[in-house]
Amino acid sequence: MEKLIVIKIGGNIIDDETALSLFLESFAKISCPKILVHGGGKLATRLAEALGIQQQVIDGRRITDAETLKVVTMLYAGYINKNIVAKLQAYGCNAVGLCGADGNLVLAHKRQGADIDYGFAGDIDRVNAAFASSLLQQDRTPVLSAITHDAKGTLLNTNADTIAQETAKALAKFYKVSLIYCFEKKGVLQDAANENSVIPIVTKKSFEELKTAGVVNAGMVPKLKNALDAVGAGVQQVIIGHAAELEQLIIQKAGTSIVHD
Amino acid sequence: MEKLIVIKIGGNIIDDETALSLFLESFAKISCPKILVHGGGKLATRLAEALGIQQQVIDGRRITDAETLKVVTMLYAGYINKNIVAKLQAYGCNAVGLCGADGNLVLAHKRQGADIDYGFAGDIDRVNAAFASSLLQQDRTPVLSAITHDAKGTLLNTNADTIAQETAKALAKFYKVSLIYCFEKKGVLQDAANENSVIPIVTKKSFEELKTAGVVNAGMVPKLKNALDAVGAGVQQVIIGHAAELEQLIIQKAGTSIVHD
Repeated sequence: MEKLIVIKIGGNIIDDETALSLFLESFAKISCPKILVHGGGKLATRLAEALGIQQQVIDGRRITDAETLKVVTMLYAGYINKNIVAKLQAYGCNAVGLCGADGNLVLAHKRQGADIDYGFAGDIDRVNAAFASSLLQQDRTPVLSAITHDAKGTLLNTNADTIAQETAKALAKFYKVSLIYCFEKKGVLQDAANENSVIPIVTKKSFEELKTAGVVNAGMVPKLKNALDAVGAGVQQVIIGHAAELEQLIIQKAGTSIVHD
Repeated sequence: MEKLIVIKIGGNIIDDETALSLFLESFAKISCPKILVHGGGKLATRLAEALGIQQQVIDGRRITDAETLKVVTMLYAGYINKNIVAKLQAYGCNAVGLCGADGNLVLAHKRQGADIDYGFAGDIDRVNAAFASSLLQQDRTPVLSAITHDAKGTLLNTNADTIAQETAKALAKFYKVSLIYCFEKKGVLQDAANENSVIPIVTKKSFEELKTAGVVNAGMVPKLKNALDAVGAGVQQVIIGHAAELEQLIIQKAGTSIVHD
């Protein structure tokens, strides 16, 4: 099977124009098929504030009311997505910016059953791997924003990490997939205070040991669980690391690789 | 050659939620390959006002400064485009929302040479017919917003009528193309005060006669010139009419058809 790299970039890169340009320049150079997934960063909060839209946050999760959905659709699927695409085109990468409604790429449903009403927040049902791979086969690079749809005419705000993971899993049937999460740290750290204490490899077994020893912190536990879930579902490896080290991450000379065993 | 219908909808439909839904429902039912092109309507002006961005208009043309470019990118390529796509998906049409940067679909350059600096306004160089027809061949329906790019990383605000026309011309090599402009009138009127005085057919010759007789008004002259230019460049026919009459427009039971002779 051919190799495919799915990369998710965090809001901290999107918020930093120079870092974003450097990242996109590296991304454009990747010679195998690739997909980029992005969320929003601080721009959504700033635009909501400028428009006088109150942001509701419950238990650390933003509630997507109708006005907030407008804001994130404008920013994620519009401003951020199209500026990334235009920059990638300038770097010679034939990017195609899409949200989950486009070509029915990511089908989701409004989050149900919780005690809290998260509003227009989407949980993913299915990623349309056929559409994504038809673009990849034509040397086009999908750039996915964190907006999905319910096939009934409603757009939904959806976690970009989850979109990246479900996309990687769906495409694992057709490609040897590496899923890379770029964030503001060099990887999973042995010592949170030491940026150079990156743990190079995490397996299901070593994850349990790290958890028991209290090495991985509360924020990292769900990330690693999801990564192990992805490698359990056919993704070859998940790599977590710093966006500025993309080239090294791809060849596993930097970051933390989460592998099946 | 297979038939292709390229339809451009005006801002007045986008501003009217009910009219837009009815139009999209009809559009989704078109059984042959189709492309939808849209601009923005009054939402851009309203969002710019809400954000305190001054709109500069010179000789009836809006100047696209950097802040206005952000607004139109958010609205046209984001909010409006993705809501149209989600609605079309709900009506069973496999829509894919794109701007000109996506897949290098519409390459443009910043308007040059005029006495006025129009800012980030783009004049079209080339429409990538290969990308559009690869989507059409997979039963996908491109929905194009009025944002293009210069392949150097800059997005450009571009007239939606012109995008529709250049798209129709580029695809005329591969399809028998009908280009339909949906606006707020039933067609080109013999008597401006009588909505039912639609002129069914305009040719190059009859256009000159209508112009000499003073029947077509100043606003309609460039529209008809562009339409005649399109049919001169291989487009089979251009139809101008009311969005609410889409089904009749397609079978030429309504609106004005502009044909080669």
